[in-house]
Amino acid sequence: MTGSPRIVEVRKNILKRNDEAARALRQRFQEAGVFVVSLVSSPGSGKTAFLEKTLTLLREAGRRPAAVVGDLATQNDAVRLARSRTPVKQIETGTLCHLEAAMVESAIAEWDLTALDYLFIENVGNLVCPASYDLGENLRVVLLSTTEGEDKPLKYPTIFNTADLAIVTKIDLADAVEFNRELACANIHSIRSGLTVLETSSKTGAGLREWLALLESRR
Amino acid sequence: MTGSPRIVEVRKNILKRNDEAARALRQRFQEAGVFVVSLVSSPGSGKTAFLEKTLTLLREAGRRPAAVVGDLATQNDAVRLARSRTPVKQIETGTLCHLEAAMVESAIAEWDLTALDYLFIENVGNLVCPASYDLGENLRVVLLSTTEGEDKPLKYPTIFNTADLAIVTKIDLADAVEFNRELACANIHSIRSGLTVLETSSKTGAGLREWLALLESRR
Repeated sequence: MTGSPRIVEVRKNILKRNDEAARALRQRFQEAGVFVVSLVSSPGSGKTAFLEKTLTLLREAGRRPAAVVGDLATQNDAVRLARSRTPVKQIETGTLCHLEAAMVESAIAEWDLTALDYLFIENVGNLVCPASYDLGENLRVVLLSTTEGEDKPLKYPTIFNTADLAIVTKIDLADAVEFNRELACANIHSIRSGLTVLETSSKTGAGLREWLALLESRR
Repeated sequence: MTGSPRIVEVRKNILKRNDEAARALRQRFQEAGVFVVSLVSSPGSGKTAFLEKTLTLLREAGRRPAAVVGDLATQNDAVRLARSRTPVKQIETGTLCHLEAAMVESAIAEWDLTALDYLFIENVGNLVCPASYDLGENLRVVLLSTTEGEDKPLKYPTIFNTADLAIVTKIDLADAVEFNRELACANIHSIRSGLTVLETSSKTGAGLREWLALLESRR
């Protein structure tokens, strides 16, 4: 929002309240032994396709994943993700441009967290607003599709700065869109030095084994 | 932001102030005889490539266009757009997720608007927040790339509801990503009945003549 003292103060209070809620969530997650991963990206970067593949592969590997997914409107993503036969909850945010910790708390209220190994939180498609809101996650993953252009890390630095991992999606389209992987990586690392970057395709399955191995090792 | 009474009140005041600034801008634009077009979309939908082509084609047609472009960080887009040899101003919003009318006002402060036929305003890449902020434009255009998926109008209804025109970009990639144009159109029209939809490619030039004809007729 704009920079008047009153707005800044109100915004500070919102963030402070969110940080407290996120801290409580993180504590609960840790006690329950569930590893929590949040996904942020532009609309249409392939978060849901990526998450559907991830849930399916984890279930096939004997793990117990679940997912919470945020959108302004529709239950579409929850319907898509339910095909992975894992527990899924949709949060409809209305006009709100990001998820907050309290929304996640409500969404998972009825779940027994000790029965889960992984909880995934798919944020509203937005490369700006979700950056400021801690959701109590252990790992924040920013997704960047090959079709979006290599300059996005430079233009949306905060979200890349707050991420623990970057995933390039739609790598199967790299040639068609003349994606320059060296430039994309250089741009990511100019914002966040040393950030791990994985290249994946939910269509061909490329990179998904490496992603699962990384998840298991971080957990 | 969240829904506490205090936040709602502050948000109302911001929007009210913006509406007043936008009204004044619209009056100035009208008096100067400049037709103002704003572009909104996800990050990476191809707004800048589309705008670069548009500026070049308009200049070649003897028109006098100019552009203001918003990003959180970098002057990249202004540098790209300057290749069209038209006046361009970059607005860096810092962490702000959208442009506001007052920012546009500052950006164009030194320009003689009567020397322009068209002013384009490229918003921050974001399908949520720009929807609520009037910039005094005559035409708000929402761009949707074929690579983003056909469901975006359903998931981000407000931005499609406030748009005067929808442009599908990267139509050259339609086959590669199995883009379903009928479904995309049906989804757009379920949110905003009768909205004109143009299919374009900044790479091949497809649809750009129709876009220019539409601009000239609306002006």
